[in-house]
Amino acid sequence: MNARNAFYAQSGGVTAVINASACGVIESTRAHPDRIGRTFAGRNGIVGALTEDLIDTSLESASDIAALRYAPAGAFGSCRYKLKSLEQSRAEYQRLLEVFKAHDIGYFFYNGGGDSADTCLKVSQLSAATGYPLQAIHVPKTVDNDLPITDCCPGFGSVAKYVATSMKEAGFDVASMARTSTKVFVLEVMGRHAGWITASCGLAAEQAGDPPHILLFPEVPFDEDKFIARVRQCVADYGYCCIGVSEGLLDKDGKLMGESGARDAFGHTQLSGVGPMIAGIVTDRLKLKNHWAVASYLQRAARHIASRTDVEQAYALGKAAVEMALDGKNSVMPAIVRKSDSPYVWEIGIAELKDVANVEKKMPKEFISADGFGITDACRAYLAPLIAGEDYPPFRNGLPNYVRLKNIAVARKLPGDFKL
Amino acid sequence: MNARNAFYAQSGGVTAVINASACGVIESTRAHPDRIGRTFAGRNGIVGALTEDLIDTSLESASDIAALRYAPAGAFGSCRYKLKSLEQSRAEYQRLLEVFKAHDIGYFFYNGGGDSADTCLKVSQLSAATGYPLQAIHVPKTVDNDLPITDCCPGFGSVAKYVATSMKEAGFDVASMARTSTKVFVLEVMGRHAGWITASCGLAAEQAGDPPHILLFPEVPFDEDKFIARVRQCVADYGYCCIGVSEGLLDKDGKLMGESGARDAFGHTQLSGVGPMIAGIVTDRLKLKNHWAVASYLQRAARHIASRTDVEQAYALGKAAVEMALDGKNSVMPAIVRKSDSPYVWEIGIAELKDVANVEKKMPKEFISADGFGITDACRAYLAPLIAGEDYPPFRNGLPNYVRLKNIAVARKLPGDFKL
Repeated sequence: MNARNAFYAQSGGVTAVINASACGVIESTRAHPDRIGRTFAGRNGIVGALTEDLIDTSLESASDIAALRYAPAGAFGSCRYKLKSLEQSRAEYQRLLEVFKAHDIGYFFYNGGGDSADTCLKVSQLSAATGYPLQAIHVPKTVDNDLPITDCCPGFGSVAKYVATSMKEAGFDVASMARTSTKVFVLEVMGRHAGWITASCGLAAEQAGDPPHILLFPEVPFDEDKFIARVRQCVADYGYCCIGVSEGLLDKDGKLMGESGARDAFGHTQLSGVGPMIAGIVTDRLKLKNHWAVASYLQRAARHIASRTDVEQAYALGKAAVEMALDGKNSVMPAIVRKSDSPYVWEIGIAELKDVANVEKKMPKEFISADGFGITDACRAYLAPLIAGEDYPPFRNGLPNYVRLKNIAVARKLPGDFKL
Repeated sequence: MNARNAFYAQSGGVTAVINASACGVIESTRAHPDRIGRTFAGRNGIVGALTEDLIDTSLESASDIAALRYAPAGAFGSCRYKLKSLEQSRAEYQRLLEVFKAHDIGYFFYNGGGDSADTCLKVSQLSAATGYPLQAIHVPKTVDNDLPITDCCPGFGSVAKYVATSMKEAGFDVASMARTSTKVFVLEVMGRHAGWITASCGLAAEQAGDPPHILLFPEVPFDEDKFIARVRQCVADYGYCCIGVSEGLLDKDGKLMGESGARDAFGHTQLSGVGPMIAGIVTDRLKLKNHWAVASYLQRAARHIASRTDVEQAYALGKAAVEMALDGKNSVMPAIVRKSDSPYVWEIGIAELKDVANVEKKMPKEFISADGFGITDACRAYLAPLIAGEDYPPFRNGLPNYVRLKNIAVARKLPGDFKL
């Protein structure tokens, strides 16, 4: 049997550990030269496949590929570019097939979230529809932790560790200054539709009265009077109040509090400004000195404080994707299966892409406390193992030393350009 | 000779390493029981002295005091509370003397920035003015790095490491997404009047074209057209543009861009919102997708990514303050003296408080590049050693394990309360 080539691409918002999955994929394809030839990466994700801008990862040293485990963001470039249905995007799927044929690609590994799983599903159907032999495997990734079936999503655990650590540190800061200075602190975090990241801020609280004192979830419409009453009570009880708020917080009418009107390539609203808005409400209603922080990309890029559990799972899922391909699978996604919370035991399972694509996993209602401002013990039991362990990158000159790949392009074989 | 007691207090905005200085002070006073009795800490800084709310640090275990080296923020509480001149605040200085006499305090260690150095100077003059034997030593601390004489200020190096690491990580993120998504990223950092922290973002750039591409210093009035032209050029050249901006950025008329109208206890303007404002200008003028982050307290509380150099200097300065007191000194401050940049060699020197109080060290003009948007090699040579080395705190359950002291109050000896 001919050793056919593999294609790997990163899709959607990048994370602190998506390159660990890339490392798992590439190290595993390299381990099977009898079955898999070269592994090409799409420069800037699927855009690289469409434009025949492929990176030859076989030209990277083993040590540089190994170093991907420690580097945040997308080493080959990612993209926000959604393929529509086979009917609507016929030219694009046709183009993908041409590129795959030209470069003898038999394995398609797509590393992304829910939208990307949908793309991967459609690619997985190309084989049956066209007769071209191709196996498409999705490698899960999303800081939003909103993919179904898998117990958690690589990228999330590290964001969770970052926001919990940041909240804990800022909480110590505010507590020590509150007597004469800032009494209210607001940290705005990511999580468009599900409160997983907001909930993770809650891990900072280890005993009663610890910050954060209030969490504002996208699942709980904002009630200003109730919120202000709680802030006032916290300041009375503890001398200060720390708040974690989701970028996706909704008002009573279901409208985004941080609505800016901008939209991204998928048509998602581009959010910003809920943190300062909440701080402004505190200023106006309570006249309390406050500060706010917006973590933005810092939270999802913070490889320096990544969760070891997250890194290990990201790598394992990349490796498992290759093993599934070698096992003849198509249209599937390796998934994390939790066997127990404490001690935390997990293993790799398998999900059908048709069950994953475009399904958004919400946070269970029972993870949010009855008053809507905190997390329950069940939530804590779920989240705690995901931030466990440290996995520091190497440092040089006081800064993390993140690998930069050579990213050498594969010679083009097709005539003409493809217009995106 | 009677072993008289010591008083230690933390003042002003806290840092990732002010507790390392506390550790240096307390471990050093404990090492000299023949000369120094108990060490009392002011609960919430000088406010604790005024209200006779003293913490008996002798009741803390040696391991808990040692653990202060790894804990951010102010373990005894800090404050923003400025004593005025001896004439204007006569009642307060009188009260301090009464509390010192009541508790046989002969050593006053004050851990703060420029405003606090002024308070310490005045306390140091109480002895001559009243005949009460008292030695006042200032321990430098400020993330703003704006104290004179000392080569750098404890707290700054760790913020510098945090912002440089964060800029580097966010830069990797944006670079990998820019083809189809965010093209401009703005990180707002602290530094009210001096651009030291803004400059530190520049350490993230290790080779030409690396982010950050633009720094907006408080020393360089904002020129919107010039800025927009530079952003456009960066996006053309690199595909994206990362910007570090100081909270203290001024417009052409010398007005704070982020002016909010609020003021802190010292009368300083409470700043916020320069980051989103700059991002808004990019949106309006260039229609480029952008994101912004405001690090706020996260940057000065981030003990998890503290600079080892900074931690070591913070500890050494606390220790040196005690040694100076034992040496009979009054009205002085131990200072960092740089002997060479590379290899980095430093030692402890001594500064007279009269030369420190109320003097703000600006960043040298030659540290800012000719175009006003970057740092020079001289600046880099100055900054680089200050972020060198890691000094991770212990972790437990995935989070930094920061010590919480018992902070047991000393029994009061004075009748009545003191009204602040």
